[in-house]
This record gives sequence, C-alpha cells and structure tokens, in this order.
Amino acid sequence: MLAEIITIGDEILIGQIIDTNSAFISKELNKIGVKIYQITSIQDDRDHILQAFKDAKKHADLVIVTGGLGPTKDDITKQTFCDFFEDTLIEDQSVVENVTQLFKKYQLNKPLPANFLQAMVPSKATILTNQYGTAPGMWMEKDETVFVSLPGVPYEMKHLVLEEVLPSVIKRFNRPYIYHKTLLTYGLGESAVAERIADWENSLPKTIKLAYLPSLGKVRLRLSSSGEDEVFLKESIDSRMEVLSEMLSDIAIGFEDETSIVGRIAHILNEKKQTLSLAESCTGGAIAERITAEAGASSFFMGSIVPYKTELKTQILGVPSSLIEEYSVVSIEVAESMAVNSCKLFNTDYAIATTGIAGPTKGDGKDEVGTVCIAIASPRGIVSEKFNFGNDRYRVIEKTINKAFEMILKEISKN
Amino acid sequence: MLAEIITIGDEILIGQIIDTNSAFISKELNKIGVKIYQITSIQDDRDHILQAFKDAKKHADLVIVTGGLGPTKDDITKQTFCDFFEDTLIEDQSVVENVTQLFKKYQLNKPLPANFLQAMVPSKATILTNQYGTAPGMWMEKDETVFVSLPGVPYEMKHLVLEEVLPSVIKRFNRPYIYHKTLLTYGLGESAVAERIADWENSLPKTIKLAYLPSLGKVRLRLSSSGEDEVFLKESIDSRMEVLSEMLSDIAIGFEDETSIVGRIAHILNEKKQTLSLAESCTGGAIAERITAEAGASSFFMGSIVPYKTELKTQILGVPSSLIEEYSVVSIEVAESMAVNSCKLFNTDYAIATTGIAGPTKGDGKDEVGTVCIAIASPRGIVSEKFNFGNDRYRVIEKTINKAFEMILKEISKN
Repeated sequence: MLAEIITIGDEILIGQIIDTNSAFISKELNKIGVKIYQITSIQDDRDHILQAFKDAKKHADLVIVTGGLGPTKDDITKQTFCDFFEDTLIEDQSVVENVTQLFKKYQLNKPLPANFLQAMVPSKATILTNQYGTAPGMWMEKDETVFVSLPGVPYEMKHLVLEEVLPSVIKRFNRPYIYHKTLLTYGLGESAVAERIADWENSLPKTIKLAYLPSLGKVRLRLSSSGEDEVFLKESIDSRMEVLSEMLSDIAIGFEDETSIVGRIAHILNEKKQTLSLAESCTGGAIAERITAEAGASSFFMGSIVPYKTELKTQILGVPSSLIEEYSVVSIEVAESMAVNSCKLFNTDYAIATTGIAGPTKGDGKDEVGTVCIAIASPRGIVSEKFNFGNDRYRVIEKTINKAFEMILKEISKN
Repeated sequence: MLAEIITIGDEILIGQIIDTNSAFISKELNKIGVKIYQITSIQDDRDHILQAFKDAKKHADLVIVTGGLGPTKDDITKQTFCDFFEDTLIEDQSVVENVTQLFKKYQLNKPLPANFLQAMVPSKATILTNQYGTAPGMWMEKDETVFVSLPGVPYEMKHLVLEEVLPSVIKRFNRPYIYHKTLLTYGLGESAVAERIADWENSLPKTIKLAYLPSLGKVRLRLSSSGEDEVFLKESIDSRMEVLSEMLSDIAIGFEDETSIVGRIAHILNEKKQTLSLAESCTGGAIAERITAEAGASSFFMGSIVPYKTELKTQILGVPSSLIEEYSVVSIEVAESMAVNSCKLFNTDYAIATTGIAGPTKGDGKDEVGTVCIAIASPRGIVSEKFNFGNDRYRVIEKTINKAFEMILKEISKN
C-alpha cells in the first residue's frame, strides 16, 4: 500500500513557511504500515491541483491533501475537489454546529457569516470533525483511491490525523508492517562512522536498508525494513542494532524516538533523583527551550539564567570580574565559574554553562567568531572544553547545544 | 521562467526530518524573480529519481536537487545523474584539494578514503565549490534545462545557494521581477480580518494576489505580483499595503522580512536606548531563544531567568511566597511580581514575565491546563492579562510567545 501527500499553498512555494505537516503525517502513517511514495507541494491553482490529484492517483491508494481550506477567497481546494469528483458543495449541519460550539467554547464573539462557509462541503464527502478549528476534514473516494483533505493549520491537522484519519485508514486498508530503528551517535563524522562499521554494513541482508543522517555534531544511523511478519522483522532489526550499538558504544547515546538525548538525560536524572540548572550565554535560552519543550521537565530541571550582558555574569551569577578581565568572557575559566555558580544559585546537582561568540560580529573581547566554551559542574567537580564551531551563527548555536547535551549526558552517566 | 525543487531522501518520506531546505531555496530564488512551480520529495531510489527528473524537465527551466550526496553507500544521486545525463564519474582535482583543505582548517584527523569519494563527479558537471563540507555542488544542463545538485546538509546548501547558485542563475536566465509584501497582524482571526477588509480586497486588480496566512494568534496578509516593470510593481503593491496597514492599524505590527516582530522590538528599544529582560516560567527559555536567535540582541537584551521550579520564583526572583500561596503560581499577581522583579534583577526598563500550565498534566496548583498569565513591566507601570490557550502543549507555548511579543511591542510603542 502506498500513500502520497499533497500540500497546497503558494506560501510554501515562495518559502514563506516551512512545511512541517508532511513530516508529521509521514511519521504517523509509517507507524501503521503505510509507505509514503512522494510528497508534492503545489500552488493554489485549480489546474495544478487537478494535475497533482491525477498524478497521485496513478501510484497511491491513499492521498492526503493539506491546506487551502480557509474561509477566505484565496482558498480554492474545496471547489477543485468538486471538479475532480464531479460533485457540488452542500451545507453540512454537523459543521454548522461545530462552528457554533467552537465560538461558544473559546468565548469568542459571534461567528461571522464567513465562518459558516466552512460548512459548505462536497456532497459525496464524509466529514471528519475538527474539534480545534472551523475547517472540517473530508474523506472522499474515487475508484480505489481514497482522498483525504485536511486543514493546513498544524495543530488542527494533527488532531484530525490522530483522532480521525488513522483509525479510518486502519479499518479501510490491509497494511504490511514497517519497522525503523535509529541509533543516535555524537562526536564522529559520517565517513569515520562508516569506516568503523563497514563489515557490519556489508553483512546486512538486502531486505534491510541502512541510512546515514548526519547533522551538526551528530550522525543518526537508521535501519528500515517492511514485511508481513512483525515479530521476525523486529527481531532481525533489533538484533543487528544491538551489535551496532555495542560496536559504537563510545559514541552512541541511545535509540531515537524511544529516547531523544533530552529524554535520556531526563530519564537518568529522574532515576538518580538529581537536578540540573543552566547558565546560558551564547545559546541564549535555547538549551532551556529544548529541555522544557518536552513535558515533565519540572521533575529535574530547576531553571536557567541567561546573563546575556557580560556584567550580569558578575552581578547575578557571581562570576568574579577579575576572572573575566584576566581570561576574557569566552574562556574555560569563566565557563567553569558560571557552571559552579549556577549550581549554587539554583541549588542543583549539575549545571551546564555556555559562553561564546556566535557571530556574525565579534563581541567585546578578543575572541574569534565561533569560539565557544562549555563547562559542566557535577558533584564530582567540573569538566570543560573550548571549541571553534566556525562562522555561521545558526551553526555555532546548534553545535553548542548538541555538544552541551553530549557532555552532560556523559557526566550524569558516570557512577 | 519556472523552477522546481526535488529533495531526495527516505528520511523526509518517513517523517524523520523536516525539509527546511526547500523553503530556503524557494525564498532566495523568488527574490531574484524565479517562480517555483513545484517541490517534490522522493525516495533514495534510482527509478523514482529518474522519473522525477523527467517530470520536472517538462515544466522547469531550472531544477534544484538536494540530498543524496554523502560519502556512504546509501547515497545514489550522483550515479543517477550519470544515468540521466549519459555520463560517467571522474575524479575532480579541485574537490580533492577542497577535502584536504577542509580537514586541515578544522584540525580534524587525516581524511579517510571515503572522504575522497566526494571527488568522483559526472564528467559533464561544472563544480560548485563547497567551502563548508566535502560534498561539492554540481551544475549540469540537458537541452534547455539546468539541473543543480546540492548537498542536503542545510548550512552547506545555504552557502552554496548564496555564493554559487544565485549568481550563476542571474547570469544564465532572463527573469521577470517578483514582488511580495506581507503585513503581520496580531490578535484577530482570519474571518474577522477578511470581513474588515472585504471592500479593499474586492478592489484589487487581477494581477495582484492576496493570501491569508493564519497561525497561532496572528494572521499574515500577503500581496504578490510579478512583471517586467519593477517600479510600477512595487508602487502598486506598496500603495495598497499602505491603505491596508492604515485600515488595520490597531492589529498590524509591521511588514514581514523588513521586520519580524522581534526585529521591530529590537529597532524600537535601540532607538530609545532602552533595555529588556525576561522572567520565563511556562515558556521555559523560548522567548529568550527567539530574541537571541537574531544577531545584535546584545544591544538591548540584558538576559533572562527561567525559574522553572515554583520555589525559585521566590528564592532568585524575589516573588513573595505569600503571593503564590494566596493567588496561585499561575496568577496575574505572580506574573506582575515576576516582571517587576525581573526589571530589578537585570536592571532593565522593560520586562516580560510568563507563568502558566502548558500541560499535558496539571501542575502543583489548582489551575487548568492552558491557563497562562503574561505581565509586562515598563517605566509607566505594569500591564498584565490572563488567558486560556487550550490543551495542546505546543500550542500553549507558541500562543504565549506570540501574545507576549504583541504585548511588549504595544508597551514600547507608547511614548
């Protein structure tokens, strides 16, 4: 069984927004054994939409369409659906009621006439009720292909996929079993990893596919396979992953999805009933943001201080100004002092401190753009390291975040 | 002139990564007058790649291909390029030298044989030197269509686009002029905005296209047009946008690209030589991260405190514990105290404070998931507001961030 995703919207094709919907839908469909053949982003244009529908129908049993369902004039998806299915728009009472309820629930003003335009749907469509917005999802069939139309607003689309689309797809289609497992490694490049695992890679059967996914400071290794026998599939991938994880034990930090690196840090600190705080200068709150984006951080994460201005490192965090003068604000010595003082300020077992020049321009001091110092304070003392992460602001910040997570994980994993 | 983007990689089709490359490329090409007809994400599969190349060639004068260029076995793009162009791989000396230089520059170990595989390129390709990674960009032509192959690693791709691809496209193609202008509004829904501007919208000529882009707490309104006469194009859109911005002056915060909301806040605070600090509880560092992601924040942004644990709001930030007991940690009173104390702690003119329950589970107190209080301290006093942002963690955090930026912008815009 194959699926395709079509996202409609000029905003994608002019680069005004990043299409995050497709990744979410692909991941969720994959989990229930549906393989995505292609993702296509097209214009808000009747002919282009019709052409994409026709092309998708050639390969796909299921076509998920997102976007183009707003109450305003620039959205033409519903009318094009009618053209494709030789259908007309009718008013659906369940949508009228849903719109009324939503306005009541969120204590908004009275709904406008435009809001009720959302209730005009193709007569052949089965309505998927959108509990978080006024645009309904729609399920339509042509020959053997199912077309599902969803609103483009991400959280509305997500709820509809999880609560309406997936259960219906499971009922409607026979699906094989698809299994991926991804090992996350930090600190070694793609080629170096490939060289170390060459023999293991060559021994993989043709039915199991290996992929390398490098990004700043980390490489993910994914094994994928699909088939009818779920138990056999899992066993053959899991056993090979166990060997791989053993071979790369010095750089592997765990399996993705099961545990992001933040999830792994959370798990260990919760088990040990220990706590973490942050003093982020060059990362400017980004490490705290990553930690608190996952629910449940409040059990081990006490807080963070971002002393963005140099003098605040002294005033709030208590880094001696003499240290800053002698060694510069981007130095091992200052990073270590920030980490130790963060432990004191927040009364935590561990602290991560970052200080650096993300660029594009140099700061007050003498340090080059890309220079970063990271320190970890722990009950056993301090570790710290100085890096040069190049001259691209985004890259410097991302590499600092990844390296900081790698360093803290190493420390909290010690006995 | 039309372009297409093809992104190669199973990781996109299984939802393991979000394709951010296409948005970047689309935006940059648009700026120089190149319209994107379609973006297609396909599998690491020879036949599928060939099919996509053939389809793209039907519409496009320029096809940008990203991904599939790593040094490891799972990448088959270069070989497929050879099939499509009836070509063979040869070793390119400039790439050999670039690989050697990169390893020297970043003081890495000796390059591995696999790293030099990057120098094997189709003989007909013009090499685009990648200064940030080992995989070169490649420029090839078939009949009248140009194919450009770029590595999938975002910062490598970005530098190649800006430094190599755009200048070559400008030389090679005649392009019309494309102009977009986007007004950013906060605080009103899509339908309500549409109703207010209906007459203005109906008066737009057919050559100018209006798009509504709603997201959490904000609606963006984009006008687009293209043509040969740059001056006429800009004037006709700018004048209409001026009228629109006037009509929506109570909810419009400025034009996108020219000024993100953070850019606008930065601009005003810099002009007034005033400063900002943050006390972020439920947003957990996300507001600081947004502010410091843009270069130049250090001129007005002093720092942030994330007192994630309730008791730290008292210990570090000085919020009276009696206040927390009496009104609950998610209350107008506590948010206001956080904001005032943040101004004191960081010695700033303004402060934003957030406290709330992002979910999925309730916190220590009696407050419902989704309850958020935001306070702004200013030289004129304090403003604050209590919200319910629903029961989706991501949505609650995003709405809080957007609302906080909206509130601070309002305050700093007063005389």
